[in-house]
Amino acid sequence: MKIINWGIIGLGDIAHQFASQFESDNANLLGVASRTLQKAFEFSKKHDIKKAYGSYEELAYDPEIDIVYIATPNSSHYADMLMLLKAGKHVLCEKPITLNRTQLNTVLNVAQSKNLLCAEAMTIYHMPLYKELKTNIQGNKYGKLKMIHTLFGNKQVSDPTNRFYDPDLGGGALLDIGVYALSFIRYFLSSQPEVKQTTVLLNETGVDESSSFHFRNKQGEIGTAALSFIANMPIQGVIVCENAYITVSDYPRASKATVTYSNGTTEEINLGDSSKALTYEIQAISQTLLSENDFSFLSLTRDVNELIDWAAKEWEMSWVFKDEK
Amino acid sequence: MKIINWGIIGLGDIAHQFASQFESDNANLLGVASRTLQKAFEFSKKHDIKKAYGSYEELAYDPEIDIVYIATPNSSHYADMLMLLKAGKHVLCEKPITLNRTQLNTVLNVAQSKNLLCAEAMTIYHMPLYKELKTNIQGNKYGKLKMIHTLFGNKQVSDPTNRFYDPDLGGGALLDIGVYALSFIRYFLSSQPEVKQTTVLLNETGVDESSSFHFRNKQGEIGTAALSFIANMPIQGVIVCENAYITVSDYPRASKATVTYSNGTTEEINLGDSSKALTYEIQAISQTLLSENDFSFLSLTRDVNELIDWAAKEWEMSWVFKDEK
Repeated sequence: MKIINWGIIGLGDIAHQFASQFESDNANLLGVASRTLQKAFEFSKKHDIKKAYGSYEELAYDPEIDIVYIATPNSSHYADMLMLLKAGKHVLCEKPITLNRTQLNTVLNVAQSKNLLCAEAMTIYHMPLYKELKTNIQGNKYGKLKMIHTLFGNKQVSDPTNRFYDPDLGGGALLDIGVYALSFIRYFLSSQPEVKQTTVLLNETGVDESSSFHFRNKQGEIGTAALSFIANMPIQGVIVCENAYITVSDYPRASKATVTYSNGTTEEINLGDSSKALTYEIQAISQTLLSENDFSFLSLTRDVNELIDWAAKEWEMSWVFKDEK
Repeated sequence: MKIINWGIIGLGDIAHQFASQFESDNANLLGVASRTLQKAFEFSKKHDIKKAYGSYEELAYDPEIDIVYIATPNSSHYADMLMLLKAGKHVLCEKPITLNRTQLNTVLNVAQSKNLLCAEAMTIYHMPLYKELKTNIQGNKYGKLKMIHTLFGNKQVSDPTNRFYDPDLGGGALLDIGVYALSFIRYFLSSQPEVKQTTVLLNETGVDESSSFHFRNKQGEIGTAALSFIANMPIQGVIVCENAYITVSDYPRASKATVTYSNGTTEEINLGDSSKALTYEIQAISQTLLSENDFSFLSLTRDVNELIDWAAKEWEMSWVFKDEK
């Protein structure tokens, strides 16, 4: 049986989580790269990884590597993906996959022309709980879907040198936590929203620190999101159907949902393991490569990226579009 | 000591609750009126009330009555208030006080010219819990106020003859449950919103069945609301400050709030009694009349009414404005 060989570039916190959760019958974490060899070497020792490189390019041109997980800063995703695709590697890129639609269209076109997979590392799409909820919703178990409400507040020290507030590193609440809220909404909505509204508060650095959103699609389903970097909020998703509503806490990696039926009875659904969110992702992507099927969440990634792109334009965050020709 | 004598017109469910919760050192429930004498008589027997009338006008012109609680259908509030004010009575009118701003301005002008109190029966303004939370927020206990998020879904059978969907009776989710969400938001916001956005789904009868709102004021505080008549939702308010967020369930008559501080610790605040929501209201209004002070929530009522009026115009719900000249 063929084994998919993975590499990682960008060796921060999320890369450590990725390596710790790497567990797959069909895949192997073969190599890691950092801008400094020492860091790559330490990382590879810690996680028992065979190869370590002191530049991303060396890993990119290692013929044994099939796919690279990109865990570099948001602002580097675009260039890193282009470099890796050019080197003939499939890529799984940390969220947000790109800062804007122009970047996304470019990388997807390159990937398609080379018959390579290019996917966003969005945990929500791979949690077993959500597959079950979506099956139930599509099977009309709770009646027609009507509304989806999300909150996500994650307080970050307001400091212009903090990466969360730095436009040069692709900061802002929308790109960091909003991408989860929008992916949750889009995953469950029957179609992409047609009506879109937003209001925002920008930080002195020009990135968004708080915002809220409404979306409505042609089925009349309404989605709302509220985000904040300057205050904590419950990280909560509520899916409202005609005959029941479903509450999910900590939705980026959830394994538990509570269903409240119209008659007042409640039901708990427990499925999957929050601590294996990246394992599910690694297994799904490896399986896609082995099956040579198309990656099934690409259209959702495109749609979420389109919503982010629209919001950034509404908010006149010109730094998001600086790479556009 | 002077005693305030109350009357009620419109003897449905909420009037029964009002009579059951009537409890005040300074006030007495003296008379009730219905369009049929038999109904008024039965109501007065049940609640041990001295006087019963078979028309609203008879109660209005009883010189012993000081103030009348109006519990008639939404569509009748305006005419009923004008009739009672003309008869020289103070009025406490069930929410929503009027269908639009023109109606509200007219009744408030009449009330002012006659030096009469004209107030909306909005439980939120009188719950002891909220006074405490507002004091804490204004005292900066939780850091700066940033966002307020509200959900309210209350499933009603979708039937054109159901009063909740009947435009002729002032139906729709905004006028029935939205007025609570907007009053909760406005009570805590430092000022009236300047930026307003909304999206809606209208029922076949022309009333709103689901909607969502964003508001932002000049302090940069954001308020959001999502309403539905076609599905249940959590009835939840979340007040987000820089150093803590406060969660309140069943906010129209809440006596419990949970404060979650940024360091993760939580604190429960229990204050007041949900089953005495109308008692608090009756006592506050009676005390206002005895003190001859202005009613302190009139400006909030005006602001909430202005938001409702704006939404109804955005939604082109022309039936809301049919009484306008």
